[in-house]
Amino acid sequence: MSVTAAQGFTAAGIAAGIKAPLPNGSGGNPDLALVVNNGPRLAAAGVFTANRVKAAPVVWSEQVLKGGRVSAVILNSGGANACTGPLGFQDTHATAEKVAEVLDGHSAGEVAVASTGLIGIRLPMDKLLPGVEKAAAELTEHGGEKAAIAIKTTDSVHKTAQVTVDGWTVGGMAKGAGMLAPGLATMLVVLTTDADLPSADLDTALRAATRTTFDRVDSDGCMSTNDTVLLLASGASGVVPDKDAFAEAVRTVCDDLARQLIGDAEGASKDIRIEVINAAGEDDAVEVGRSIARNNLLKCALHGEDPNWGRVLSAIGTTSAVFEPDRLNVAINDVWVCRNGSVGEDRELVDMRYREVRITADLAAGTESAVIWSNDLTADYVHENSAYSS
Amino acid sequence: MSVTAAQGFTAAGIAAGIKAPLPNGSGGNPDLALVVNNGPRLAAAGVFTANRVKAAPVVWSEQVLKGGRVSAVILNSGGANACTGPLGFQDTHATAEKVAEVLDGHSAGEVAVASTGLIGIRLPMDKLLPGVEKAAAELTEHGGEKAAIAIKTTDSVHKTAQVTVDGWTVGGMAKGAGMLAPGLATMLVVLTTDADLPSADLDTALRAATRTTFDRVDSDGCMSTNDTVLLLASGASGVVPDKDAFAEAVRTVCDDLARQLIGDAEGASKDIRIEVINAAGEDDAVEVGRSIARNNLLKCALHGEDPNWGRVLSAIGTTSAVFEPDRLNVAINDVWVCRNGSVGEDRELVDMRYREVRITADLAAGTESAVIWSNDLTADYVHENSAYSS
Repeated sequence: MSVTAAQGFTAAGIAAGIKAPLPNGSGGNPDLALVVNNGPRLAAAGVFTANRVKAAPVVWSEQVLKGGRVSAVILNSGGANACTGPLGFQDTHATAEKVAEVLDGHSAGEVAVASTGLIGIRLPMDKLLPGVEKAAAELTEHGGEKAAIAIKTTDSVHKTAQVTVDGWTVGGMAKGAGMLAPGLATMLVVLTTDADLPSADLDTALRAATRTTFDRVDSDGCMSTNDTVLLLASGASGVVPDKDAFAEAVRTVCDDLARQLIGDAEGASKDIRIEVINAAGEDDAVEVGRSIARNNLLKCALHGEDPNWGRVLSAIGTTSAVFEPDRLNVAINDVWVCRNGSVGEDRELVDMRYREVRITADLAAGTESAVIWSNDLTADYVHENSAYSS
Repeated sequence: MSVTAAQGFTAAGIAAGIKAPLPNGSGGNPDLALVVNNGPRLAAAGVFTANRVKAAPVVWSEQVLKGGRVSAVILNSGGANACTGPLGFQDTHATAEKVAEVLDGHSAGEVAVASTGLIGIRLPMDKLLPGVEKAAAELTEHGGEKAAIAIKTTDSVHKTAQVTVDGWTVGGMAKGAGMLAPGLATMLVVLTTDADLPSADLDTALRAATRTTFDRVDSDGCMSTNDTVLLLASGASGVVPDKDAFAEAVRTVCDDLARQLIGDAEGASKDIRIEVINAAGEDDAVEVGRSIARNNLLKCALHGEDPNWGRVLSAIGTTSAVFEPDRLNVAINDVWVCRNGSVGEDRELVDMRYREVRITADLAAGTESAVIWSNDLTADYVHENSAYSS
């Protein structure tokens, strides 16, 4: 159901020709999505990449979101429009103007833009702008799936989620398969809701949700220039929800989409759930989790179904978290292979056959915890990212 | 030549049976090296891993080096003796005692120990201790090569270097092929000199040299528990060298060995020289260089001979260095593919056929610079580190 699960939204996904046409001449892959908020409310919040090298659409949309209102989001795959200079920014601006022009009564200053694809190439505006007209003509209340399909890059499947509570709904779509690391995993995400809330409440809920979901997905340690997560509210349900219930619904949808991103990461054969427990602080737990998530040697070992806990300890040892080396405990798939910084239970007891691998790192230094999701490192990942530019 | 290039040293390398025997029954790979300083001076300095999870031999040798005197170094491959608890430390202690016992007039407190291999397994002391006797019996002034061979793990070749200046020599050996990242690349290095200098001078020269050589090798971003670099002086030449000349000789040998480590990194097909120029400070230059060196997507692209400068910019953007995104310039193999944060010269001009790839990142923010060496990320790296425990 995606971005049209909530009332008050229409969407479309079309092939504008930004991506290369398919060899069979069938017109090309979908590459342009349009999501429109038909109100009555146009409240919105957004979270963007922490990368200091930001794509033009990120610079544009950050500015749009400062107004707290978004009437439409236009998203393209097939090109990131990053590192494209002032002309690239003009392309983003022209895209927003085009959306405002084809949708009666819209203002470009309330149109968010998101792009994904190769860095350092200009977008083919001669294809993109006519595509906007085509997308506008195909807007429907059932267009959410097509929009989710149009933002895919190396994703093998499109990703959607939704939660309905007491007469209001939060739904959404996501793309992302590589360059997945925090400061948002590399992703474009659009969430919509028909709950009746102002942008300040959306912002609070969205920041709280992304902090413990998308921001704790670290597939390959590479932070994108284009990460964008938007939450749009139409107010069409007429319901003003309880703030905690709303925050929980947004978190649930974000968590669902984040797990789908990890499950479809480039070349991955394992989804790795890293839980750091008994940390002195949450920041310590996150730092240790990320260090484990980014250890290439460990990621290779897990790919080979080798419960190599020594590589977990060597990763923990590079952090500034509070711990004593001889008090560290590590479990892999619930077998405590390391106790007190040394050999624990027999590693032969660890069953590594399944896609999900659970690592528990006990810092024995406090009561805080955090979960980071990651993937293994595989020859397929190397192949996908070396065989062609992406 | 190795550690016996300088006068006053003897060395040996033997197969003690710590590594599994060869299938043909020919007695196993060399796995135990002994280096002895026969004086008249026994001055020494050492630099060790910055990993907070330190192997038993690192904890031991750090203590030994505080005295500034080392009469012998015993090194084993086939097991790191890391994360082995108090019993592992006892094993290291017993090894040093055994060396002192078999070498007349030595004290265990002046015997440094270094180990490399799998983390989290105890060393087979029933093989190691008899091996010490065997190694002592084979000590010669020509044993440097054999010692260098005995410390190999996944190294495809052994690594030695030397410089001779005005009657004194600095020579050395190194091992290291994976877990190569700073806070010293994962390595064991022993340098020897017959120059007549006290330990304080050795320490100054060694720290200055490692800071710009081994500490700027970042093959796979993984910091080891066992990194050890030792410099021993015998004074046997009777020459007190100029301090600057001595520092330069030590730096030259370290640089030579560091380049050999990169050239033999696990699974690598490219040696990547990353030079960050026009940085506001040296720390900025190093931070940016490391971030580029650790970007898996870029490492894959370079493996595929794709001059993907967008991934260089996205890596720079994750740092806290001083720069403006729209003033960044990047050259790959001397072609300025990115100018002012945007598209520069035609990437088709970049010749990527050779093993060495040169990336120049111009921060346009100052006058400082630094060079970091790294490797590409390949399916062979994944295979070497997933197919078996290492």
